[in-house]
Amino acid sequence: MSRRDIYEKLRARSKEIALVRGAANLLGWDQDTGMPKKGLAFRADQLAWLDGTAHRLWISADVGEWLAALRDSGEAWEAGPAANLREWERSYQRATRLPSSLVEEFARTRSMAREAWLEARRLSNFSHFEPLLERVVGLNRQMAYLWGYEDSPYDAFMDEFEPGAKAREMGPLLTRFGEAVSAILREMPARETVSLQGDCPIAAQQAFNRRVVEAIGFDFDAGRIDTTAHPFCSGIGPGDCRLTTRYNERDFTQSLFGALHEAGHGLYEQGLPEANFGEPLGSAVSLGIHESQSRLWENHVGRSLEFWERWFPVAADYFPHLKRFEPAQVWRAVNKPAPSFIRVEADEVTYDLHIVLRFELERSLIEGSLAVADAPARWNERFESLFGLKVPNDALGCLQDIHWSLGSFGYFPTYSLGNLNASQLFARALDEIPDLRPGLGRAEYQPLLGWLRRKIHSRGQLFRARDLMIDATGEPTHHRFHEAYLRAKYL
Amino acid sequence: MSRRDIYEKLRARSKEIALVRGAANLLGWDQDTGMPKKGLAFRADQLAWLDGTAHRLWISADVGEWLAALRDSGEAWEAGPAANLREWERSYQRATRLPSSLVEEFARTRSMAREAWLEARRLSNFSHFEPLLERVVGLNRQMAYLWGYEDSPYDAFMDEFEPGAKAREMGPLLTRFGEAVSAILREMPARETVSLQGDCPIAAQQAFNRRVVEAIGFDFDAGRIDTTAHPFCSGIGPGDCRLTTRYNERDFTQSLFGALHEAGHGLYEQGLPEANFGEPLGSAVSLGIHESQSRLWENHVGRSLEFWERWFPVAADYFPHLKRFEPAQVWRAVNKPAPSFIRVEADEVTYDLHIVLRFELERSLIEGSLAVADAPARWNERFESLFGLKVPNDALGCLQDIHWSLGSFGYFPTYSLGNLNASQLFARALDEIPDLRPGLGRAEYQPLLGWLRRKIHSRGQLFRARDLMIDATGEPTHHRFHEAYLRAKYL
Repeated sequence: MSRRDIYEKLRARSKEIALVRGAANLLGWDQDTGMPKKGLAFRADQLAWLDGTAHRLWISADVGEWLAALRDSGEAWEAGPAANLREWERSYQRATRLPSSLVEEFARTRSMAREAWLEARRLSNFSHFEPLLERVVGLNRQMAYLWGYEDSPYDAFMDEFEPGAKAREMGPLLTRFGEAVSAILREMPARETVSLQGDCPIAAQQAFNRRVVEAIGFDFDAGRIDTTAHPFCSGIGPGDCRLTTRYNERDFTQSLFGALHEAGHGLYEQGLPEANFGEPLGSAVSLGIHESQSRLWENHVGRSLEFWERWFPVAADYFPHLKRFEPAQVWRAVNKPAPSFIRVEADEVTYDLHIVLRFELERSLIEGSLAVADAPARWNERFESLFGLKVPNDALGCLQDIHWSLGSFGYFPTYSLGNLNASQLFARALDEIPDLRPGLGRAEYQPLLGWLRRKIHSRGQLFRARDLMIDATGEPTHHRFHEAYLRAKYL
Repeated sequence: MSRRDIYEKLRARSKEIALVRGAANLLGWDQDTGMPKKGLAFRADQLAWLDGTAHRLWISADVGEWLAALRDSGEAWEAGPAANLREWERSYQRATRLPSSLVEEFARTRSMAREAWLEARRLSNFSHFEPLLERVVGLNRQMAYLWGYEDSPYDAFMDEFEPGAKAREMGPLLTRFGEAVSAILREMPARETVSLQGDCPIAAQQAFNRRVVEAIGFDFDAGRIDTTAHPFCSGIGPGDCRLTTRYNERDFTQSLFGALHEAGHGLYEQGLPEANFGEPLGSAVSLGIHESQSRLWENHVGRSLEFWERWFPVAADYFPHLKRFEPAQVWRAVNKPAPSFIRVEADEVTYDLHIVLRFELERSLIEGSLAVADAPARWNERFESLFGLKVPNDALGCLQDIHWSLGSFGYFPTYSLGNLNASQLFARALDEIPDLRPGLGRAEYQPLLGWLRRKIHSRGQLFRARDLMIDATGEPTHHRFHEAYLRAKYL
């Protein structure tokens, strides 16, 4: 076979796997949106089969032979195929370096850890979770060793969510940013805001959200919005991207910002090059970039004064109790910082402090400088230094998140990366797009979306995330853009 | 391996295939209920992959070796495993006797035939469809030859939908029944009925239908109802059965009878033995039995006077324009026969005459005694003799159904079998269940459902359909029960 033939074989296999994963995504979406509850056990079997099949299709001997043949040929490829080969190689190495006995033990341990975590959180008692977390961390360290890493075993996990990211860069970035946020919190004046609570029928929220999400450019011929307990965005395949949100019948902003956040993810999915679907070139580059798209539309657009000047009259038609307010009052109400114990309820300002804390702790756990038994004390101590609040119990502290029970170390920093990237990209867009801000006040979103399509969406995994940021903004992720954004808004 | 080990291997493979088919069913359900339209092309690829994978899993050499080993051992099996082996053998033979080149040519021809049929129907011009139908019939005859048959090549097709059915039995059954219906139509007095049309908001129809469908025993923890252009019932897996119906905002009976019909199918699916899911023992026995369950609940229950005496007050709460009527007037209105050209709009009395016509024609086409070019003339001639009406054009005649363009010969008779079986089963249930009819007037459906669970649902494919009818009613399908039902109701 010629090099090109071998490349096409890899491409076909990659697309076949994407087809299987897309089916699994649909089954997962259905499980969360409408599956009858008695269907759960069989659905779990189906998802396990689809995951296993996708995995088998990739770790099969022929894929290894194809990659080896192209690796050894030593010839140069054009940028697109080279990017595909780079990512295929990476994922093949990751998939094949773990023996299946370890993968299975990890899956079993996670199941037990999830149960133990639920119980520990319910009782607010870390000791119920500690032995399982000990095992999860131990298995993770083993996996990092098998995957390989340069500086820190933590890099081996970030590589899953943020390919190419390194703890030695992430550490200083988050630490410095955390200090900046702490300074903002100290300087921030106390503000009174109005309450937006009132009668918000779900049908009215759905109609309003749909108008907004359609206006920013989400294509409803290639997607839909449904209701779930935890909002998400799921790419089922080209031309099919599903968003979800959740409704509070007294507060329309919860579903609105959920929908805007997920629509930001959805615009990225809808903007990936369709011809490359199922290849790295047609896939999102990293979670830190994905989250930048959701945060950009949720916060930089949806929480802007221009947004509320344009959409307030529409919102007041759907929710008449708002009629007594001015747009600026609503804008201030949806931008009210308030330090709290729970990450998922955190505002824009304090959110990243929650991440700084988690990043530091999980990195120490994985690198071995923190014992699992000492995690709660370290959490509480660090929380107080960051937020100035004493953690009253572990349920409001180190037991609040599901991630560690799932063994998902290295995931948390992508949330903050998303915030930093969003501000950096938006600052650049403001520089490059004439009249961007006044346009947002007229609901003219196409210039911004077009810019993101060109700079981010259409690139797929042509570059790694770091180089994509350099290409789009002239430098890798830096915290000063987000710091400036928060300072301008809150001080 | 021991015989039991080999049997268990077959069982595991059969369940694995059911898991894949269940995923395909969910993707198909989603395509009809909510998929964004731009997702179509990729969905087609996904379904083709899932179908192809399920097929490959079954025609693989190991399955053939396992079946051969058990066949040659010559030992006796208990009834349950023997039934599984009988059906595995049948489906393996059917799946492997066609060369894949023929399967692919058939798939391509069907795609083209479907397009040609749509165009021909639009233009009401059979000549647009004729060359493709010629090829479909030709390929079908080739397939029948490869599958093998005793008397008639038509048997090879019925075997797909109604395993074990024979044209030599089906012919006289349908012919005699057709004559009986014609006699009823001649004797039937003209009747005036009230119009039930009025304001029927969809939400009210959904609430009413759900109450009725729940009352007859459909488990909404193991299923749901959605909206589609063409109602269907799809078994996704154990604990997950999806019904659909369609709404007319002026007439609530359309969605109600759609929901009752599909719920009849759904009760069968929910009553199959869950431990045997994915095996023949856990699967519906034939389309003729499946349709008997839908027809029984739709017509024998839902179109009974007892039903309307019980549900009329509830319906009138949801649809206040009904308040001016008596229950018996509504009952008569939902039982109004009117000969018409289109099968899917036909009433309970004339419906089977449409089937008699199609059965005769397609049997002649497959047996070679009717040329494709002569089909329209034969259709129109036979239609006039059965209905006393002249067919004005082919769109209202031989071009109305999709089945032939799909190459689905042998499917039509299962609709009539369903009607005949429903009446035969219901007559037997009336004999065996004390006070069944008065109970229906009090919405007591459990005795009837329990009887069907014992006699039909829980059996899976333990017997072939013919023997299942003998076991449940003492004799194979006979038309006199349905004839008696129609005579009692309409004369």
